[in-house]
Amino acid sequence: MNDRRLAEQVRIVGSGLLGASIGLGLRGHGVDVIVEDASPSARNLAIAYGAGRAPAADDAPGLIVVAVPPDVTADVVAAELQRFPDALVTDVASVKVAPLDDLRSRGADLTRYLGTHPMAGRERGGAVSARGDLFTGRPWILAGHDAISYRRAAPIEHMILDLGAVPIEMDAHDHDRSVALVSHAPQLVASLLAARLRDGSAASLGLTGQGLRDTTRIASSDPALWVQILGANAPAVADVLRPMRDDLDAVLTALDAPDAPASRRVLADLLAAGNDGVARIPGKHGQDKRYTALVVKIDDKPGELARLLTEIGEEKVNMEDLRLEHSPETKVGFAEISVLPQKAHALAAALEARGWTLMEAER
Amino acid sequence: MNDRRLAEQVRIVGSGLLGASIGLGLRGHGVDVIVEDASPSARNLAIAYGAGRAPAADDAPGLIVVAVPPDVTADVVAAELQRFPDALVTDVASVKVAPLDDLRSRGADLTRYLGTHPMAGRERGGAVSARGDLFTGRPWILAGHDAISYRRAAPIEHMILDLGAVPIEMDAHDHDRSVALVSHAPQLVASLLAARLRDGSAASLGLTGQGLRDTTRIASSDPALWVQILGANAPAVADVLRPMRDDLDAVLTALDAPDAPASRRVLADLLAAGNDGVARIPGKHGQDKRYTALVVKIDDKPGELARLLTEIGEEKVNMEDLRLEHSPETKVGFAEISVLPQKAHALAAALEARGWTLMEAER
Repeated sequence: MNDRRLAEQVRIVGSGLLGASIGLGLRGHGVDVIVEDASPSARNLAIAYGAGRAPAADDAPGLIVVAVPPDVTADVVAAELQRFPDALVTDVASVKVAPLDDLRSRGADLTRYLGTHPMAGRERGGAVSARGDLFTGRPWILAGHDAISYRRAAPIEHMILDLGAVPIEMDAHDHDRSVALVSHAPQLVASLLAARLRDGSAASLGLTGQGLRDTTRIASSDPALWVQILGANAPAVADVLRPMRDDLDAVLTALDAPDAPASRRVLADLLAAGNDGVARIPGKHGQDKRYTALVVKIDDKPGELARLLTEIGEEKVNMEDLRLEHSPETKVGFAEISVLPQKAHALAAALEARGWTLMEAER
Repeated sequence: MNDRRLAEQVRIVGSGLLGASIGLGLRGHGVDVIVEDASPSARNLAIAYGAGRAPAADDAPGLIVVAVPPDVTADVVAAELQRFPDALVTDVASVKVAPLDDLRSRGADLTRYLGTHPMAGRERGGAVSARGDLFTGRPWILAGHDAISYRRAAPIEHMILDLGAVPIEMDAHDHDRSVALVSHAPQLVASLLAARLRDGSAASLGLTGQGLRDTTRIASSDPALWVQILGANAPAVADVLRPMRDDLDAVLTALDAPDAPASRRVLADLLAAGNDGVARIPGKHGQDKRYTALVVKIDDKPGELARLLTEIGEEKVNMEDLRLEHSPETKVGFAEISVLPQKAHALAAALEARGWTLMEAER
């Protein structure tokens, strides 16, 4: 219970998924965690799940974690800074400029505040969904600013490390621009495309392949939460979407005269730009490695995929990624297995010798 | 070698991935397959791979399959109809209205032509990538029209069934509208979003999560082929993208005044429309089932995933889908396993009892 960096008593305000998960994780390291929430029933639920204890009159938290919706984050941070004049305060909202500007304009004590953003991926659920290991291996941004000293901020980094996450320092504006590009704009784009599916016939949707499934997957996200996130980061999101709208206008003009050479060039340039953009996404573990994909046919019966993976393990090959693909109206699936290029040929031969059918990979 | 429906000699014009794969598949059933190509070297390569034999003076094909790029499909179909006045002719281009209209305007003999589109998913590679089982379990659209009789078209359906694909009859206009919605527009949307990544910093792209990866995956497709596809189906693609552009304009206006109640409503409505749209995508096997997802933590060492799937098999649970998720800069992965809702609870308990760590699923 003592394998921890964090020495402070921690007060968590907001007992949703993130707050309760932080509480559970820190309690697992023996930290004294206080849970508070504007809703007493939500607070009591988080306490029942083991996220911490109820506040007491003699609480003296060294670190306060504000885990409330983006709209009210600055309000709650300001109130906590006032109420506990010796405490360091952080928040975990997924936007960082708006709360910082808001606090600065109120004259809040920024020498004791540093905002953060855990890239924990699952953004709904409440305390019932909380897990102490929610942050294991996830990047957790610290949005640095000039008013707080490195030394004063240290307990926040200790908490992040205790929770198994990876601290990454990033200026608040850079953070908001980054998440606008890699998270907020993609959310809207997926929703814009998925919204078109409302008008499609059942026969059309029956032809859906893996491409459309992947492109629209995140469109199932919670609207209420996303309206807050998008509202709080609106300028940065618009900066991504506005040039995209201009590109889309150019595409629509090209589609109106598809046989004109200039139109073909517009389409080809955009598709090539997409090639270039997607190639910039780092691979697994943040490295920019490229893997070779093998596509193996899998009969739709229990145990086939497990058998395949077991046999890949027997060939002493480490699988870097795996994607399953189904085609509608069929009982056959395909497993796309990514391996190091120098392993691909021998593995393909070994799997064929074991009776598996390999297909040519799409990419 | 005689387990086949198709009785005719088959001539395949175009020896790329699709043409050569059809040849390989039919040869596996003992069909006499002739391979032709405007490029003699491409033809000879396909023949070397076993896709068929070279043309001879006394060829009398009953079925001709035109497997050339969309731009020249109508030209080649018209030439084949003239050269072989008794043969049935089909094509496999991914657009269906343009070739049919073109052939009709030339006065081609449409009583012997029926266009098709195998949804084979892998659209590059040439004969070197060909596989006789490329079409196994895939939908294969027959774009019906009034000039050809059901009986005259039968050999095409026989070929599709011999190749293990699933024949689906669909009007040419319905086909083009359908693929515009489920394939062509998503391709452009993925490219439009991925194109924005060219301007992002490496630090921004380092925060990329599974959402952006999925949303942009197909942006790595071949521009040259897609320019042809989009050009040949331009009006239908524009019909999908134009209302999307209007929605995007409304979003941009909302992002300019994010605190206005009307702006919040615009964003909430779009996100909810995305929820509705993505919910219309059929599940595996074309059914509209919903599965429950369990997310299991996987250590990044060989054999862990195989062990998990083996143990799921031991629990006698059939996994309906599997998605792997990595976070950058970490050695931990997550497997999202979809199972029937009534199986989820017992499986989760069994896996936890076996020592696995389950996380709350995102959806």
